[in-house]
Amino acid sequence: MTELKNDRYLKALLGEPVDRTPIWIMRQAGRYLPEYKATRARAGSFMDLCTAPELACEVTMQPLDRFDLDAAILFSDILTIPDAMGLGLYFAEGEGPRFKNPVQTEAAVKKLGIPDPDAELRYVIDAVSLIRKELNGRVPLIGFSGSPWTLATYMVEGSSSKDFAKVKGMMFDRPDLMHILLDKVAQSVISYLNAQIAAGAQAVMIFDTWGGALTPRDYKTFSLNYMARIVDGLNRESEGRKVPVVLFTKGGSAWLESMATTGCDALGLDWTIEIAEARRRVGDKVALQGNMDPSILYASPERIREEVATILASYGQGSGHVFNLGHGIHQHIDPDNVKVLVDAVHELSAPYHGK
Amino acid sequence: MTELKNDRYLKALLGEPVDRTPIWIMRQAGRYLPEYKATRARAGSFMDLCTAPELACEVTMQPLDRFDLDAAILFSDILTIPDAMGLGLYFAEGEGPRFKNPVQTEAAVKKLGIPDPDAELRYVIDAVSLIRKELNGRVPLIGFSGSPWTLATYMVEGSSSKDFAKVKGMMFDRPDLMHILLDKVAQSVISYLNAQIAAGAQAVMIFDTWGGALTPRDYKTFSLNYMARIVDGLNRESEGRKVPVVLFTKGGSAWLESMATTGCDALGLDWTIEIAEARRRVGDKVALQGNMDPSILYASPERIREEVATILASYGQGSGHVFNLGHGIHQHIDPDNVKVLVDAVHELSAPYHGK
Repeated sequence: MTELKNDRYLKALLGEPVDRTPIWIMRQAGRYLPEYKATRARAGSFMDLCTAPELACEVTMQPLDRFDLDAAILFSDILTIPDAMGLGLYFAEGEGPRFKNPVQTEAAVKKLGIPDPDAELRYVIDAVSLIRKELNGRVPLIGFSGSPWTLATYMVEGSSSKDFAKVKGMMFDRPDLMHILLDKVAQSVISYLNAQIAAGAQAVMIFDTWGGALTPRDYKTFSLNYMARIVDGLNRESEGRKVPVVLFTKGGSAWLESMATTGCDALGLDWTIEIAEARRRVGDKVALQGNMDPSILYASPERIREEVATILASYGQGSGHVFNLGHGIHQHIDPDNVKVLVDAVHELSAPYHGK
Repeated sequence: MTELKNDRYLKALLGEPVDRTPIWIMRQAGRYLPEYKATRARAGSFMDLCTAPELACEVTMQPLDRFDLDAAILFSDILTIPDAMGLGLYFAEGEGPRFKNPVQTEAAVKKLGIPDPDAELRYVIDAVSLIRKELNGRVPLIGFSGSPWTLATYMVEGSSSKDFAKVKGMMFDRPDLMHILLDKVAQSVISYLNAQIAAGAQAVMIFDTWGGALTPRDYKTFSLNYMARIVDGLNRESEGRKVPVVLFTKGGSAWLESMATTGCDALGLDWTIEIAEARRRVGDKVALQGNMDPSILYASPERIREEVATILASYGQGSGHVFNLGHGIHQHIDPDNVKVLVDAVHELSAPYHGK
């Protein structure tokens, strides 16, 4: 494989010295970019875009051509695994994801198999290989998956949900069944992420979008527990380098200490915690990714730079910080403001790395 | 005024000894009750229900006739103040609240007046008087308002919002303007709640539904700050008793210590924190209300009782706890399960009060 020209991102995740704080942006390939919308229109449906490796590669590269980002992230959907399990993922226009066959009975849970990533998820693995080739060592490529709990919420509800009535009903009344479901999903995530790593993903991130909807007890039992199992099951070395693992529970800032004991290398933070406090709480056990409020990108360039300065100062001296938003970028953001953000992080972070 | 027959709720908020842990349920008068749906159908629109004092009184009483609740809460909407300011509140079917005239410019902010509760909000004040008469001392009546920040989110966005683009845009770019807006809303809330107290509300609660969407810094500046000002401005004594004030920021469990310094009597908790930890953090500075995951009510009676037992044990011995859900009850809950909850709280809490 080609030598990596910019490895700030990987080094920061492992707490190794860097010259600048690296930055990437959750959902950096997305609807705020006109070139993304053009490719999306050519593709047909959103799933047509995800399942065509050359188009997924094209949109993955788009933000890198505009901004001085320190990592690329595989363009895909978090619901590819349940789709490969036979749930029939589709996107109703303006309505978010839906499944034709939600998993709501004991029989449905027991029928679920573990998808073979090289067969049913081949299109993702092919996209990873293609993107790595296209990147040609420019920046590292991040692979990802949804967390078992987060995938289970969509699988049981059959769609997005506001109150999680069905999935929590199952969790509270049939915890045995919920554990069977989560166990199958966790096994699937392990083989899926290991296949991404084998195909060239240089770091992986687990998105636990809905762990924050749980009580602290239920979070540990039904979400964190399965993320820990995934961390254990991953191949953590590839191409002679360590493959860092990042866990991100939206709304999970109260639980950083327990997240840090899973063996992961870094934690994603939303913006409801000062990054200084998060650093104090996790020590140098893990690196931190985050944590600017995505809405700051609606503000003026001056205000964006000011916020970058505040977050960098809050984290303070040394490595172990990957700058990011605390959640995915909104679709109505002006791309010029993203350039302001990315450049501000590089420019203003030098003093924190002894430069 | 008639003597209060059940004052457990008021005593618990002030940390005075009680025989049982009191319970009420956020949104206890609501769509999960068939009798509510019948009144709502008779009323016409949701706002027709809110603005007719005798109907608001009728639905306020309904849950008390079914369940052994320790408090009634005024049936109303959190957006009555902006409506009275001339924003034109309406409810598009199945879409949540909307304003005809959102506040998005400097001119619009500066034009806003402070509503006179005895004029533009007379229907609410009349409902309070009527409910007090109808309660006849059975249980205390809780008055309420939205927090200034939460009201401002709807006022600027013009509707519910997922990412708060407009209101955060104003906050980040024109903090001066946002402070003028929040100041006017805070003044309005003070006179509105004082009018509710004068009409018979025996405790008041401030709902900060969207404070949890802010960073810790912005929360203090733009939400907590204005709630503290309200606490300062309220008449805290009425009918020879203290009128307790409860603050509730959904998603605010990280900020309990600062919320407790506002001079309020109690804090509402969502379910993302163990109540034992919350109690440890606030000491006996304030009482605590909460904090069962509303989705537990989808589970079996046994599981509901088990969860009640866990939360009561987590809070532990002594007064200062008002049992509640961590958010409003969902509309598809079986009312029989609510009875299980209410009875379990009374039955299982006796040992924690030396009985």
